[in-house]
Amino acid sequence: MFELLLDELAQREDITVRTVTTGSKMTVEDVEEALPKLLEFDPDLIVFVSPNPAIPGPAKVRRMILGTGVPSVVISDGPAKRIVGEIEKQKMGYIIIMGDPLIGARREFLDPIEMAIFNSNIIKVLAVTGVLRTLHQEIDRLTTALRKDLPLTLPRLLIDTDYILANSDFQNPYAKAKAMAAYELTKRVAEIDTRACFKERDSEKYVPLTACAHEIAQVAARLAEEAREIEKYSDTLVRKPHSKRGKPLIKIELMLPPTVDEETYRTWLETGRP
Amino acid sequence: MFELLLDELAQREDITVRTVTTGSKMTVEDVEEALPKLLEFDPDLIVFVSPNPAIPGPAKVRRMILGTGVPSVVISDGPAKRIVGEIEKQKMGYIIIMGDPLIGARREFLDPIEMAIFNSNIIKVLAVTGVLRTLHQEIDRLTTALRKDLPLTLPRLLIDTDYILANSDFQNPYAKAKAMAAYELTKRVAEIDTRACFKERDSEKYVPLTACAHEIAQVAARLAEEAREIEKYSDTLVRKPHSKRGKPLIKIELMLPPTVDEETYRTWLETGRP
Amino acid sequence: MFELLLDELAQREDITVRTVTTGSKMTVEDVEEALPKLLEFDPDLIVFVSPNPAIPGPAKVRRMILGTGVPSVVISDGPAKRIVGEIEKQKMGYIIIMGDPLIGARREFLDPIEMAIFNSNIIKVLAVTGVLRTLHQEIDRLTTALRKDLPLTLPRLLIDTDYILANSDFQNPYAKAKAMAAYELTKRVAEIDTRACFKERDSEKYVPLTACAHEIAQVAARLAEEAREIEKYSDTLVRKPHSKRGKPLIKIELMLPPTVDEETYRTWLETGRP
Amino acid sequence: MFELLLDELAQREDITVRTVTTGSKMTVEDVEEALPKLLEFDPDLIVFVSPNPAIPGPAKVRRMILGTGVPSVVISDGPAKRIVGEIEKQKMGYIIIMGDPLIGARREFLDPIEMAIFNSNIIKVLAVTGVLRTLHQEIDRLTTALRKDLPLTLPRLLIDTDYILANSDFQNPYAKAKAMAAYELTKRVAEIDTRACFKERDSEKYVPLTACAHEIAQVAARLAEEAREIEKYSDTLVRKPHSKRGKPLIKIELMLPPTVDEETYRTWLETGRP
Amino acid sequence: MFELLLDELAQREDITVRTVTTGSKMTVEDVEEALPKLLEFDPDLIVFVSPNPAIPGPAKVRRMILGTGVPSVVISDGPAKRIVGEIEKQKMGYIIIMGDPLIGARREFLDPIEMAIFNSNIIKVLAVTGVLRTLHQEIDRLTTALRKDLPLTLPRLLIDTDYILANSDFQNPYAKAKAMAAYELTKRVAEIDTRACFKERDSEKYVPLTACAHEIAQVAARLAEEAREIEKYSDTLVRKPHSKRGKPLIKIELMLPPTVDEETYRTWLETGRP
Amino acid sequence: MFELLLDELAQREDITVRTVTTGSKMTVEDVEEALPKLLEFDPDLIVFVSPNPAIPGPAKVRRMILGTGVPSVVISDGPAKRIVGEIEKQKMGYIIIMGDPLIGARREFLDPIEMAIFNSNIIKVLAVTGVLRTLHQEIDRLTTALRKDLPLTLPRLLIDTDYILANSDFQNPYAKAKAMAAYELTKRVAEIDTRACFKERDSEKYVPLTACAHEIAQVAARLAEEAREIEKYSDTLVRKPHSKRGKPLIKIELMLPPTVDEETYRTWLETGRP
Repeated sequence: MFELLLDELAQREDITVRTVTTGSKMTVEDVEEALPKLLEFDPDLIVFVSPNPAIPGPAKVRRMILGTGVPSVVISDGPAKRIVGEIEKQKMGYIIIMGDPLIGARREFLDPIEMAIFNSNIIKVLAVTGVLRTLHQEIDRLTTALRKDLPLTLPRLLIDTDYILANSDFQNPYAKAKAMAAYELTKRVAEIDTRACFKERDSEKYVPLTACAHEIAQVAARLAEEAREIEKYSDTLVRKPHSKRGKPLIKIELMLPPTVDEETYRTWLETGRP
Repeated sequence: MFELLLDELAQREDITVRTVTTGSKMTVEDVEEALPKLLEFDPDLIVFVSPNPAIPGPAKVRRMILGTGVPSVVISDGPAKRIVGEIEKQKMGYIIIMGDPLIGARREFLDPIEMAIFNSNIIKVLAVTGVLRTLHQEIDRLTTALRKDLPLTLPRLLIDTDYILANSDFQNPYAKAKAMAAYELTKRVAEIDTRACFKERDSEKYVPLTACAHEIAQVAARLAEEAREIEKYSDTLVRKPHSKRGKPLIKIELMLPPTVDEETYRTWLETGRP
Repeated sequence: MFELLLDELAQREDITVRTVTTGSKMTVEDVEEALPKLLEFDPDLIVFVSPNPAIPGPAKVRRMILGTGVPSVVISDGPAKRIVGEIEKQKMGYIIIMGDPLIGARREFLDPIEMAIFNSNIIKVLAVTGVLRTLHQEIDRLTTALRKDLPLTLPRLLIDTDYILANSDFQNPYAKAKAMAAYELTKRVAEIDTRACFKERDSEKYVPLTACAHEIAQVAARLAEEAREIEKYSDTLVRKPHSKRGKPLIKIELMLPPTVDEETYRTWLETGRP
Repeated sequence: MFELLLDELAQREDITVRTVTTGSKMTVEDVEEALPKLLEFDPDLIVFVSPNPAIPGPAKVRRMILGTGVPSVVISDGPAKRIVGEIEKQKMGYIIIMGDPLIGARREFLDPIEMAIFNSNIIKVLAVTGVLRTLHQEIDRLTTALRKDLPLTLPRLLIDTDYILANSDFQNPYAKAKAMAAYELTKRVAEIDTRACFKERDSEKYVPLTACAHEIAQVAARLAEEAREIEKYSDTLVRKPHSKRGKPLIKIELMLPPTVDEETYRTWLETGRP
Repeated sequence: MFELLLDELAQREDITVRTVTTGSKMTVEDVEEALPKLLEFDPDLIVFVSPNPAIPGPAKVRRMILGTGVPSVVISDGPAKRIVGEIEKQKMGYIIIMGDPLIGARREFLDPIEMAIFNSNIIKVLAVTGVLRTLHQEIDRLTTALRKDLPLTLPRLLIDTDYILANSDFQNPYAKAKAMAAYELTKRVAEIDTRACFKERDSEKYVPLTACAHEIAQVAARLAEEAREIEKYSDTLVRKPHSKRGKPLIKIELMLPPTVDEETYRTWLETGRP
Repeated sequence: MFELLLDELAQREDITVRTVTTGSKMTVEDVEEALPKLLEFDPDLIVFVSPNPAIPGPAKVRRMILGTGVPSVVISDGPAKRIVGEIEKQKMGYIIIMGDPLIGARREFLDPIEMAIFNSNIIKVLAVTGVLRTLHQEIDRLTTALRKDLPLTLPRLLIDTDYILANSDFQNPYAKAKAMAAYELTKRVAEIDTRACFKERDSEKYVPLTACAHEIAQVAARLAEEAREIEKYSDTLVRKPHSKRGKPLIKIELMLPPTVDEETYRTWLETGRP
């Protein structure tokens, strides 16, 4: 869904997006077969989205991208934190989302429906808390720089609760506190699922633990929704659509039109962050 | 996310999945550039996911696939209903999801966050109501046939409320009624957003209409969640994970292990539907 | 309950209300027996409330009223839309409420309790969305004209979502969007119940469909309630009580007293709409 | 709405219903004008629905009915309890609903919309708790007796929480407890509104009190709804529709058809209570 | 928990708190054994918290305290109202909380878990409605007077809904109405539990009644929570922490620091009420 | 509130309870003054409830108790885990509750009302998850042994999510998963509040963090409540009241009476755990 974030209205004329994936598996062979197809599109920027980029398949991707010299950004989850140094050495940017949890991947518990519902809940949390805002704005910033032929400053972001505290668009402090709470919950989900998937061997334990983790994910989504509702209740919900030319827009009152977010745009031109 | 449905545990050894997308835009040029890359993977089966497959880009895709002779299935939304005859003539299978609504694509209303939340809500409805179940099982049925070298019967499914009524896994009749209700709501969302996006020209009208449609999507997701909770309350929630070899499994009581869903599997081998 | 809308405090000195009904049945014989009793009250204005006014009983009522020359207004639901021309020819006013749905009238599903709950939900939606406001204000306008001996302009209103968009009292745009959503849901209820009552013959289908429709009605009521709560949260809930003399009053902040709604009153005197 | 309870499907062939009302006012003059019209229908049974039947208008009604000799039943609210002896002396039956509260009839608070919402909430409570069930079954019992030419035993019922405890259809004891709780809340509403309407003279006091009472009514409706949901969750919701001939039917599992409620019917024939 | 109210941050340097209790039993013997230990701490002020202070144990406490001459305040529930005159004669202050209900003390229903949950719900209501605010501020007022050597005016407060109406910190009138409603519900709980515990002898009656009362307590807690949420939604939640020296502080906007509540403090020095 | 757990009905004849506390402060001086009063009651068993028993005041308590030779049990929260060895050396039993979190003790955020609400939420979680069950049963076991003159085996329990998984009374596995989730949330609250209270120095950070932690506590309470409701929905809620003589009772269906929990009682007599 990441690609939709960049052009939610399907009207941008300034960028062209291509995605190639290997489904849910990502072995070295998968990667060796799939990545070259992407490179054939001759990209100006590669965004590589993967859980745990330290394991062989994703590691291979990083090495292969490194060889091409195309500027690239890794978007990943908690375990990526451990290889930040390595990614930096590879001159790649990164956005690591601490609150993007592992799923409860146990066959007694997980089926495609449970998986989809879990993802639905996590997407809602990442959207409301502003994590997805950061994702698209960082890439927007880079595409702006590419378009304007400015030097690229690749992102080096670890998105934890503090980041949300400092960067969210919430106008109401309790809405922000609830959003932070939702994000904390997804981090807890990550811890519990990691234990359930990798540490427990007894289904009497890991099944309740995965169920417990997914219940937390559900509650986190509700809490995130509640945070957003607060802003609706005072008509202070911030929206930041893309213009056709990719310029950042902003609006608050629902019935007023968006205007160019000059402040953000200026920062982008100065290659700062959004 | 469709590709994850096929292998929610990332452990299947019987299939290999590759995805190529063109982001949210899908012009003829996008398609002409991207589709060949997919074909280079030399696929046994192509699943083509697109809204409104009658417009030029997706139409081009269908013609290009037709030329390759690879068996293929179109997954699409309500507007596709009008060209069912054409798809059948192209010998493609189809699964048309009447309750997969257009988003409220108006710049005064839609930004990447609103888009992600809307998708989160729709995914939850499609998951709980059993639409996603049908999606993965139809493809599972085809991959089984391919593996066993059986003749392929491509799906020709129009997924409307009646289909859910007849095919859902709910054990409680009120849970099913609530799921059907959720699905009906997403169909209403489709109608309202179509009007807001294509018929109204005054933002005083289309902004409230898109907001109204997205509120319905939110309510639909809650209602779907409620339906699923009912099954949890009596520990009758049906789960159907994939085995490593792709055989369909089934389980009901949470603390019991899944077993092979022999009935479904037999139907697949008889090239019937799941 | 309509009659209570006109005098919620039972203190109006400017009007006298009489109701005669035929219960839930409305055959020609029922009508021929009951309507004369009403006419004996020698009314200045007749308000005729009935579902589907095209069927024989209600049609008879209209013809009988036509004979009396008493000004009259038909209040009805969606199916009435088809005979608007006929009603106009009969010189009757009309208020047609598209979101006042048929009940799920199937014996396997409907009993008096289910009926009462359904009506409770629909009343809440019609109240919150402002439909009932229009009803009483239109009649208030007419009684004012009668009292002042002004020429009567009978209403010709089709109350659909657009009408609510343009006429509701909501101060918060998201509250309005939620109210519109609630109204859209009741329209969906109408469609599903019509199908369940008149088109399906198999109880395996129509029972789940009626249950589904009533679940939507319940959700619609909750959504309407939520819309009203938003206005409470910012103390901007508009109230429009009747004065003893029938003049329209208005107030917003809960702890402040109502004042005469001069603007509305002036429009009434100019025989415009409220 | 009472008349709809007797024939929710509008298909009963064994009874004919006529209603005459005086709107929300009920002075002696109103009554003297309206009641004769009802009597002209030559009724076999009169059901007189009124709050507080001790005040002059309703008292006049009782005296007028007494003169006709037609069997009749008074349906009323809490204050009626004080004149039960008088009603009995008038040989009328009665059903007094302790949990049918006075509305918050203060002009600073009540407008037609608030009134309708309040009634919506109270209807839901009376429906779910089984009060409306008792209402229609008592009248059904009498019409059966009239049809069979059996001696009439007019009801003498005071419907308080104990009555609900002993007579409700709930299968789950917590559902019943929640329903009882909802009913207790409406009784509290009655007490608070009585104080707000008749005892307090300062709007700084009576406005918050009416608002408080109506909040309780809203909560009571939610609680009642929750009670009913519990029965849905185990598919044990009891439904008791009318047959065409007015015989009592009963069903529990949603997907099964209703059958004749022989037990209840037998009791009716023995002129006992339902 | 009362003692924590006086020093929520455990940082006050101006008071020292000691508690001695007799568990849930409070016979004369319990009291005779326990109270002397408290007196040995040589207190400046005794706060005696007990349900129903008219029964022998608590009555004994009052007499024993009377003998010591230490200024003291009785904090109690509804039944205490009957002995207000007696308490006044004993020169004790009192704060009687009408909405602090008896628990559903029937062995078929109450176990330690049910007890804890009930108390949790009641605490929430008493906290949100401002009852606990009054408790700590009254004692704060007295400790200030003791510290400043001012004459003590012991409180004589009957905390009923009116008191909350006049004294709560709510900024939004609907929040206040909901809080009042929550308090009214706890009063109803008291009445129902009193009946269930002392008047009914049949478990078929008292078990549902206790269950009903505890359901109301749960609903009351939710309603109280909702009232507080309203204030969060507009960032107007009033907080009144203690300073280290025991001076009353006050703040409203979450992100602003507290300041000394000079007005309250001045009233205390004038030995008026907070 | 702990003392109420032991005798929720105030009818036990086999134990006498005395409590002495030092309010929220617990310095060495507080402890030296207060503890002797408790010892004067000549207790058979001391239960010492305190957060963080490693700090000077509580450490002093432990040493003082050690000197008396009275069997004793420490009940404490997460930080106590670090001194388990020390407590064992002191021959004290312990029950350490990992999910009993520190409050958000920052003056900009915490006032007595916020404190009470937080405690209300935590109590609900500890009650529903079964932590309070373990507390009272462990003490019940010890008092039984004392009464029967059996050797005492003091508890050594670390109550973490695993303990709840293995010991809760839930009959429905999803209810248990939700309860575990609620408990996990309170553990997260502990972590966030610890950071907010002891690590952050900037109020721009610690105020949102405490608010975030308390929002999680609120959500945890709701989730716990939901878990309990599930058991009500199928009438499988387990209740374990005390008999007059302190024997453990048990019951499940609400309308059935409790019986002696022989299994638990036998384990107690064998000085095993409940």
